[in-house]
Amino acid sequence: MLENAYKWFHTSMNDHPGLTVWFTGLSSAGKTTLSHAVCEQLRSAGYKVELLDGDVVRQNLSKGLGYSKEDRDENIRRIGFVAELLSRNGVIALVAAISPYRAIRDELRTRIANFVEIYVNAPLAVCEQRDTKGLYRKAHAGEISNLTGVNDPYEPPLHPDLECRTDQEAIAECVTKIVKHIESRLAS
Amino acid sequence: MLENAYKWFHTSMNDHPGLTVWFTGLSSAGKTTLSHAVCEQLRSAGYKVELLDGDVVRQNLSKGLGYSKEDRDENIRRIGFVAELLSRNGVIALVAAISPYRAIRDELRTRIANFVEIYVNAPLAVCEQRDTKGLYRKAHAGEISNLTGVNDPYEPPLHPDLECRTDQEAIAECVTKIVKHIESRLAS
Repeated sequence: MLENAYKWFHTSMNDHPGLTVWFTGLSSAGKTTLSHAVCEQLRSAGYKVELLDGDVVRQNLSKGLGYSKEDRDENIRRIGFVAELLSRNGVIALVAAISPYRAIRDELRTRIANFVEIYVNAPLAVCEQRDTKGLYRKAHAGEISNLTGVNDPYEPPLHPDLECRTDQEAIAECVTKIVKHIESRLAS
Repeated sequence: MLENAYKWFHTSMNDHPGLTVWFTGLSSAGKTTLSHAVCEQLRSAGYKVELLDGDVVRQNLSKGLGYSKEDRDENIRRIGFVAELLSRNGVIALVAAISPYRAIRDELRTRIANFVEIYVNAPLAVCEQRDTKGLYRKAHAGEISNLTGVNDPYEPPLHPDLECRTDQEAIAECVTKIVKHIESRLAS
C-alpha cells in the first residue's frame, strides 16, 4: 500500500522539472542574503529547495582549489553538476556563487535543462562599502589577491533572466520578483 | 492550478525520505554491474534514482585527487555530500565506489539519515581473474600502484545491511535481493 503510493508520487514527480537558479555577482552584492530569503519563502510555500552557497560548497566539494580562472571554473562546474542532479529530480537548486566568468555560466545554461540566471548587481563602490566579509579591506591592504572586482575580473551577464539592483531595490522587492519568476518558470 | 498541484506534490514528497545505497567492494567485485541493474529495475518501477559511479564522479567532482588514503577519503566525502543532498529530497542515490576505508563509510552512515551499505564481495582471486578494467594486470606488472587489494588495503564492512557474494550468487539473484531490501527500507 505504502509502496504503491510512494511509486505513484515518484512517477508523478518524475514528469515535473526542477529548476537551477544561479545568483551571480560581486562579493557583498547580496547573493547570500537574497538566496537565503528566497529559499525560506519557497520552503514555507512547500517547495523542495536546496541552497548551494559558494563558500559552503567550496568546503565540501572543492577543498584544495584556489582562485585562478581554472580553479574558479572547476569549482563552478562542480556546483553545476550537483545543481543539475538536484533540479532534474524536481528540486529547486539555488546557487549563490560569484561565478565571475561568462563562458562557464553559459556552459551551465546549455547543460542544465531549466536554468535561471539572476544578476545580483550593485556597483563596486557600494559592495566595497558594505564589505560583508571584510574582503575588500584585505584586498586593498594587499593581504589577499584575486578578489573579483578589485584584482580579478567580473564579466556581468549580457542577458540574465532577472537583474536585481540591490543598491536601488529593497531586499523584499527583489525576493518577491525572484519568487514570482521562479513560480512562472515552474508553471510554464 | 498547475502551481497548486506542484506544491501539493512537493509537500507530499517532502515527507518521504529517499535513500542512499552504498555499494562497496574490490575492483571487479561487481559494484557497477549490480548498481546499474538495480538502477534500471527501480527506474522502470517508477522510482526517482540517480547512480553515482565512483569513476564517473571522480571526473566531475574530484579531478586532481589521487589514491592516497586522504584523497580517497576526500573523494568519498564528496560523493557522500551529493548522495545526501539527493536522498534527503526523496531520491534513491545509488553509489558504486570501492570506498576501502571503514571509518569514512561509518562517518557517512552517521551523517546520512537513510543509509544502506551493501558489501559486494568476491574473493580477490576471483576479482583478479575477472579484471574488468585490466587494473590487476597493470598492478602486477608494476604499472600502477595503490590498487585496492593488491598494494592498498580494503577494510570489509563488519555489519553491512546486505552482502552479495558475486562469486556464488547470480546477478539476477543479487539484484532481486537488493531491490527487495530497498523497497522494505522505503516502506518502513
